[in-house]
Amino acid sequence: MLTVYGMKSSGNCYKVQLLLEQLGRPYRWVEIDSAAGETRTPQYLAMNPNGKVPLLEVEAGRYLAESNAILCYLAEGSPLLPQDTWQRAQVLQWLFFEQYSHEPYIAVARFICRWLPADHPRRADLPRLHERGAQALAVMERQLAQQPFFAESGYGIADIALFAYTHAAADGGFDLSAYPRINAWLDRVRAQPGFVAQQV
Amino acid sequence: MLTVYGMKSSGNCYKVQLLLEQLGRPYRWVEIDSAAGETRTPQYLAMNPNGKVPLLEVEAGRYLAESNAILCYLAEGSPLLPQDTWQRAQVLQWLFFEQYSHEPYIAVARFICRWLPADHPRRADLPRLHERGAQALAVMERQLAQQPFFAESGYGIADIALFAYTHAAADGGFDLSAYPRINAWLDRVRAQPGFVAQQV
Repeated sequence: MLTVYGMKSSGNCYKVQLLLEQLGRPYRWVEIDSAAGETRTPQYLAMNPNGKVPLLEVEAGRYLAESNAILCYLAEGSPLLPQDTWQRAQVLQWLFFEQYSHEPYIAVARFICRWLPADHPRRADLPRLHERGAQALAVMERQLAQQPFFAESGYGIADIALFAYTHAAADGGFDLSAYPRINAWLDRVRAQPGFVAQQV
Repeated sequence: MLTVYGMKSSGNCYKVQLLLEQLGRPYRWVEIDSAAGETRTPQYLAMNPNGKVPLLEVEAGRYLAESNAILCYLAEGSPLLPQDTWQRAQVLQWLFFEQYSHEPYIAVARFICRWLPADHPRRADLPRLHERGAQALAVMERQLAQQPFFAESGYGIADIALFAYTHAAADGGFDLSAYPRINAWLDRVRAQPGFVAQQV
């Protein structure tokens, strides 16, 4: 049985939950509260030396970290990850885009707005996060003018990865009404078989 | 013929150069000066809407962005990327670690120290970049206590991705003498067939 060590409020962890539900794979979820230091205990660091969630335990003692690496591993052989080398490269392009150009702005803005006090000094970062996050959303809007999902091969893990924080971007102060194609795509993702909403 | 749009001083671009040299694949290199705005021209944005280097043109009009996606695409079928699903997942884990937990600190510190003036306000970011970068180096040092290269399968694209900025970490003010296993690994990478040093 697969075990996911994750935190329900984290979009990176929700990616793994959403994929497992859509694949119909049974799994055990162990809730880890990183805000309470549970990713920094000696026991947790022995499983993931980088001290982050999500973490997948595929069998006793075999661990895989990094949400998007977990998506690739679990989706292998399913229609959610194409076999063709070029199509797969496009999926990976969007997964790296998500972790480098999207998540560090859109997820971090959400974290600051939702979980830090109103007078916290990190609020000073918000203008820069909003500027960079808007750039990422503009790249997404442009891609969705070409095709209904991020990969040519159709709905798959690139959409799951990008859905995780885009659907909650308003929590971080982003106004999604300026991105009609993103809104239509969010609805297409929600209409996929096995879709589950994030429980926050 | 493959075309790489890249900037020689960028570690992300050097990754692609190093892999192509090690694979013995012919390619054309088009130098792009992002500091001079060459990644923000309408022509460049038509090729890569995210406005970054490196960019791989695999044939006329077919482009792939994101350095680590390019590594996966080019290494497919070679000994530098294993076929086995679990081993491949481990490689991807390290590629995502590099882009999320390593490059944003170690590459950015190098950029600030080498290319911004001594009185630039972004120098105030350096203590935080050094703290987070040191965490990434500690994770690497720990992994290299287990095995000689980052993936179980031996030398490959996870090493290429992590070498790109680790070998130049001193440029950003990191003291690598505290990481003896990383230093020994850097030497093992330099000893690989087809290795070329970064020309900066």
